[in-house]
Amino acid sequence: MSDTKTALIISAHSADFVWRCGGAIALHQKKGYEVTVVCLSYGERGESAKLWKQEGMTLDRVKVERRKEAEAAAQALDVHDIQFFDVGDYPLDLGRETQDRMVDVIRAVQPKWMMSHSKWDPYNTDHMYTTDFALTCRMIAQAWGHNPGQKVLGAPQLYLFEPHQTEQMEWKPNVFLDISEVWDKKRAAIECMQGQEHLWDFYTNVAENRGNHFRRNSGGMAGGRKATHAEGFQMIFPQTVDELA
Amino acid sequence: MSDTKTALIISAHSADFVWRCGGAIALHQKKGYEVTVVCLSYGERGESAKLWKQEGMTLDRVKVERRKEAEAAAQALDVHDIQFFDVGDYPLDLGRETQDRMVDVIRAVQPKWMMSHSKWDPYNTDHMYTTDFALTCRMIAQAWGHNPGQKVLGAPQLYLFEPHQTEQMEWKPNVFLDISEVWDKKRAAIECMQGQEHLWDFYTNVAENRGNHFRRNSGGMAGGRKATHAEGFQMIFPQTVDELA
Amino acid sequence: MSDTKTALIISAHSADFVWRCGGAIALHQKKGYEVTVVCLSYGERGESAKLWKQEGMTLDRVKVERRKEAEAAAQALDVHDIQFFDVGDYPLDLGRETQDRMVDVIRAVQPKWMMSHSKWDPYNTDHMYTTDFALTCRMIAQAWGHNPGQKVLGAPQLYLFEPHQTEQMEWKPNVFLDISEVWDKKRAAIECMQGQEHLWDFYTNVAENRGNHFRRNSGGMAGGRKATHAEGFQMIFPQTVDELA
Amino acid sequence: MSDTKTALIISAHSADFVWRCGGAIALHQKKGYEVTVVCLSYGERGESAKLWKQEGMTLDRVKVERRKEAEAAAQALDVHDIQFFDVGDYPLDLGRETQDRMVDVIRAVQPKWMMSHSKWDPYNTDHMYTTDFALTCRMIAQAWGHNPGQKVLGAPQLYLFEPHQTEQMEWKPNVFLDISEVWDKKRAAIECMQGQEHLWDFYTNVAENRGNHFRRNSGGMAGGRKATHAEGFQMIFPQTVDELA
Amino acid sequence: MSDTKTALIISAHSADFVWRCGGAIALHQKKGYEVTVVCLSYGERGESAKLWKQEGMTLDRVKVERRKEAEAAAQALDVHDIQFFDVGDYPLDLGRETQDRMVDVIRAVQPKWMMSHSKWDPYNTDHMYTTDFALTCRMIAQAWGHNPGQKVLGAPQLYLFEPHQTEQMEWKPNVFLDISEVWDKKRAAIECMQGQEHLWDFYTNVAENRGNHFRRNSGGMAGGRKATHAEGFQMIFPQTVDELA
Amino acid sequence: MSDTKTALIISAHSADFVWRCGGAIALHQKKGYEVTVVCLSYGERGESAKLWKQEGMTLDRVKVERRKEAEAAAQALDVHDIQFFDVGDYPLDLGRETQDRMVDVIRAVQPKWMMSHSKWDPYNTDHMYTTDFALTCRMIAQAWGHNPGQKVLGAPQLYLFEPHQTEQMEWKPNVFLDISEVWDKKRAAIECMQGQEHLWDFYTNVAENRGNHFRRNSGGMAGGRKATHAEGFQMIFPQTVDELA
Repeated sequence: MSDTKTALIISAHSADFVWRCGGAIALHQKKGYEVTVVCLSYGERGESAKLWKQEGMTLDRVKVERRKEAEAAAQALDVHDIQFFDVGDYPLDLGRETQDRMVDVIRAVQPKWMMSHSKWDPYNTDHMYTTDFALTCRMIAQAWGHNPGQKVLGAPQLYLFEPHQTEQMEWKPNVFLDISEVWDKKRAAIECMQGQEHLWDFYTNVAENRGNHFRRNSGGMAGGRKATHAEGFQMIFPQTVDELA
Repeated sequence: MSDTKTALIISAHSADFVWRCGGAIALHQKKGYEVTVVCLSYGERGESAKLWKQEGMTLDRVKVERRKEAEAAAQALDVHDIQFFDVGDYPLDLGRETQDRMVDVIRAVQPKWMMSHSKWDPYNTDHMYTTDFALTCRMIAQAWGHNPGQKVLGAPQLYLFEPHQTEQMEWKPNVFLDISEVWDKKRAAIECMQGQEHLWDFYTNVAENRGNHFRRNSGGMAGGRKATHAEGFQMIFPQTVDELA
Repeated sequence: MSDTKTALIISAHSADFVWRCGGAIALHQKKGYEVTVVCLSYGERGESAKLWKQEGMTLDRVKVERRKEAEAAAQALDVHDIQFFDVGDYPLDLGRETQDRMVDVIRAVQPKWMMSHSKWDPYNTDHMYTTDFALTCRMIAQAWGHNPGQKVLGAPQLYLFEPHQTEQMEWKPNVFLDISEVWDKKRAAIECMQGQEHLWDFYTNVAENRGNHFRRNSGGMAGGRKATHAEGFQMIFPQTVDELA
Repeated sequence: MSDTKTALIISAHSADFVWRCGGAIALHQKKGYEVTVVCLSYGERGESAKLWKQEGMTLDRVKVERRKEAEAAAQALDVHDIQFFDVGDYPLDLGRETQDRMVDVIRAVQPKWMMSHSKWDPYNTDHMYTTDFALTCRMIAQAWGHNPGQKVLGAPQLYLFEPHQTEQMEWKPNVFLDISEVWDKKRAAIECMQGQEHLWDFYTNVAENRGNHFRRNSGGMAGGRKATHAEGFQMIFPQTVDELA
Repeated sequence: MSDTKTALIISAHSADFVWRCGGAIALHQKKGYEVTVVCLSYGERGESAKLWKQEGMTLDRVKVERRKEAEAAAQALDVHDIQFFDVGDYPLDLGRETQDRMVDVIRAVQPKWMMSHSKWDPYNTDHMYTTDFALTCRMIAQAWGHNPGQKVLGAPQLYLFEPHQTEQMEWKPNVFLDISEVWDKKRAAIECMQGQEHLWDFYTNVAENRGNHFRRNSGGMAGGRKATHAEGFQMIFPQTVDELA
Repeated sequence: MSDTKTALIISAHSADFVWRCGGAIALHQKKGYEVTVVCLSYGERGESAKLWKQEGMTLDRVKVERRKEAEAAAQALDVHDIQFFDVGDYPLDLGRETQDRMVDVIRAVQPKWMMSHSKWDPYNTDHMYTTDFALTCRMIAQAWGHNPGQKVLGAPQLYLFEPHQTEQMEWKPNVFLDISEVWDKKRAAIECMQGQEHLWDFYTNVAENRGNHFRRNSGGMAGGRKATHAEGFQMIFPQTVDELA
């Protein structure tokens, strides 16, 4: 194994990683990380309304279109590797087989940190079950008796990225990441999502307002950093540090 | 103002800073920080049972004893500055005058981070009101119109240190600090608390078990740091970062 | 599709809709709604103690009796349509097949609002899993790619009706409905539940006391509405309004 | 007393009502309500950094400027009446005298609904103490023995308007109000806040994104209302209704 | 000090102890306890609407009437001692002087357990501030340096009795007490409250339904105790036991 | 059925019962209870790192070793009966078949109280799913129609024993049990866990510190019981009592 730092995103549907952590991906790639994205599904049934409104659309054609968009976005963000599990959506099939595939990826990637959805989402249970699934797979990947001989996982942080209606999802960010320097990459990735144009400005607004929150929490009018765009994340696990920031 | 980094502890009673963040103090002093401790009271009425059991004890004598112990502990921890507000305890007097004194100290210190008690404490309301007080004073210190001309405060983190019965206080640590290299200093400070010998081993156990938590959260049996002692803290405010850890 | 407004109740066991929202059903029927009730099971194993104490009772006979009671109660409440999914109880089988049936009903009904159980119920996990199930089915019914061509669901509110021990279920009503004018229908429906006579007065008390809460929250002694009976519900989703009430 | 419907906003500092509920004010004025705004302070010390950076600024001049801005904004929103209590800020003086003044206003206005801050705000304790204060004053205004002979208050809803960092304040909106038709008035009022230009776009983004949330919760892509701008509020008390929405 | 077991109720207004813990009082008196009730106020301003509607009513006359009712109720419940602090209501004056009086009572009574209101009550802030006050007074009573020489308090449980709208007050009972054998006494005490007749049946319903909860939690249809009436309480502090029940 | 009191522990992995409730087991056995322990798995894959580090280890050999350790610990604690369900770990198989086995055991044991894991555990989802499973099985065991003719279960308390990082698991003890007199047995059982020696002192520290909490909550310096070791538990269900403690 090389010394390259790695990270792993587990995205329920193929566009989630763009809106919710596109900045974190591009930024960490720029810093030399290798970021892997796993899309459990294409969001082909539940998040492709615009495509389905076209005459004669089929599930396969939706998947092809959604995959193209996701790959283009991944490229815009310099994603190291993107994998499509294609387990169906609305609902996702998160059974034992999907678990085993996911654990294999986790162990292969050996992520310094992982990222997934909020713990609760009454609008979209795919999201919240993905988080449970991520926790279970992280646990299995740590088990010395699971495929003995493979390198076991340490204890990477699990970040929860920002859901669409934060307060309804009981999601509370405890870290803001300055993504100003890669904002153009994130916006470019966002614009790859041709089927969800109604969300482009929404997530631009989010990034700008999180930039304001970043400035506030880094000192406000008495020395806050001039971040223009940011992303917020909720850490599930406590941090371990050598010095308090 | 020099470039020295500073920190500020607001302790309801004169021994709290020892049990709850003695390691953080000693560690940051070692790293070149200047740590100031404000003891709002000596805990003279409510946390000096052993002294009061002595014949002919008076409030003044209790205060003198408690101050001596706190100063000795501060010295053991290399505290930069310790101040005693002497506002009475059980209950504390946290009125406007105490606020103004506190704000003056905050502005003079310009702490990179602050530290105080848990948000809820049904056993000891002095503790929880101290936290409210710390938040209010932090807010006032940020106000450009409070004593205009003084340097206003930025947005330092407020860490909540570990209360005596964590679960009852609804306190949840989201950061663990490795204090192994200064543990002997913390133990020495603890032993300065002659009136509360029944707590020496309690807080030694806490430090050891938080060391275990540190190891778990930094990788467990697959690469966790060999911390022997740690302290846990709860951050009130979100962090602002350049990279995810 | 006609202009008739519709509503859908998802009830884990066949009597739940009577105790918990019989008033809402009768009232909305009176207002011209068409209310559909789906009973996932008859509560044949877990909520029919009185029947099982009879000599020679069988599962089929219990189901027949429970169905009769539920149909009688539905009639007393003027229910538009009642369906029995018969998926077994203690525990319910809420797998993919049951999901698909439920989604078909949701799409056929196109409810203006839906109703189900509390989010947490340590006494009866059938209840809480039914709520998860309702959320998942609502999500699937909204998916343009699920059975394309069918009319997709909008965004109906999901009301959680009152569980047996509200505080233990972490259920908090945020709306009270005045059912005074249909109370006699609800009482009549309650009395159809021959096997659970011990609950008749309990739920009468509940309705009276919720009437008191209605009066308090509508103005109390300074103009509160003279409601004699009410039901409480917890809305999962935020409301969208044109004017604040 | 006339039949005119009335509403009352209790704002800790003089600009809060603009950012947080300017749309609700303008909309209800348009619907014939008479909306009264009480500004407990001018935010003269804590929310006027830009003014304080000017040479030779005094507290009185800050108050005058802040009052001018607030009055201009109130005019832009068609506010019926705006009152300045001038009780000081950072911290507010919310003692018995301020309570009595507030209760007098509440009773004079007899609001159909009231509005104030979030329950928790670690950044700004003025905000959270204002909410406690609003609850206490509402309670006193309901007391038949407080200034007997005055008309007592009924049980108006207390809406909590949107704080600056919603998740940190544990604020969860349960109602979204469509303010599209008065958005231009709100933007005009926002632009009256010359001292806080850095917030103009922030709150424009908020209004647009709450518009998206309105559309989602009113039907989404299957019939959601085409709201362009919205405001979110959290109701403290349960609603009392005749029909479920 | 005798071996008699004692208990102490801290009631914000003079009727609270009747509705909320009349059964517990009568039952423990019957078991040989000496139960002291402290009414901080008569509820003269805020809970005496019926009296204030009489022509020519004065504050003093209201107090006299309310005191009579409370004393009669206390007698019906066999209360050992009832004290009226008369600190005013809506709002209560809970300053240092009231604290000192309360601590004196606590130390004189040396209660095995204490009882007060819920932690949160948006309808009635007197209630929630009374609970904070009770916790602070309990803390002071434990302080060896407060009036040295007096017998200090141990660590009695603080029970929170049932508020009027449990779910809105975030109150969750974790113990049910069977009051069947003293129900007639509680009903008699309730009927002493001539000014609040509208609550008699409400609290009778509560007692009956808590009886049902008692039966459920003590075994249900497989051996539950035949309690007809019960009261629910929330313990603030953990219990210390020799055996699990 | 005899009059012997019984209890049932449901342990996800074979060592959990030792660390988390070994004292409760030994103490209740001493009091004449018959305590049954069900280990759903051996923790063979996820909690046997030390064994897996040995050359040529196999799953079967790990199970054998782990079983030996668990049986030795059970013997040290005087466990009445220990059963190994062997359903696999990381993740556990908690499907219908495992449910049925568990319900059979519950009905056979007829426990006065049951015990299992915390409700939330992001580190180890086996733990939290075991608690859900325990609640579901308890519910089924109460159903008169499940295997009619068998003795149905009453309403035993479900205690949640102490997880490894209490605050992260949102676990809050509401009862402390004095295990001083059986501490030596618990320590002996702990030392049977040869593969997890790194936890021996950790759980010794826990027991000592819980002893401190016991003393505090039973009277502190004014009469607290001299417990040296204790265990903490969280009760899921409310208690039913005849007298307040």
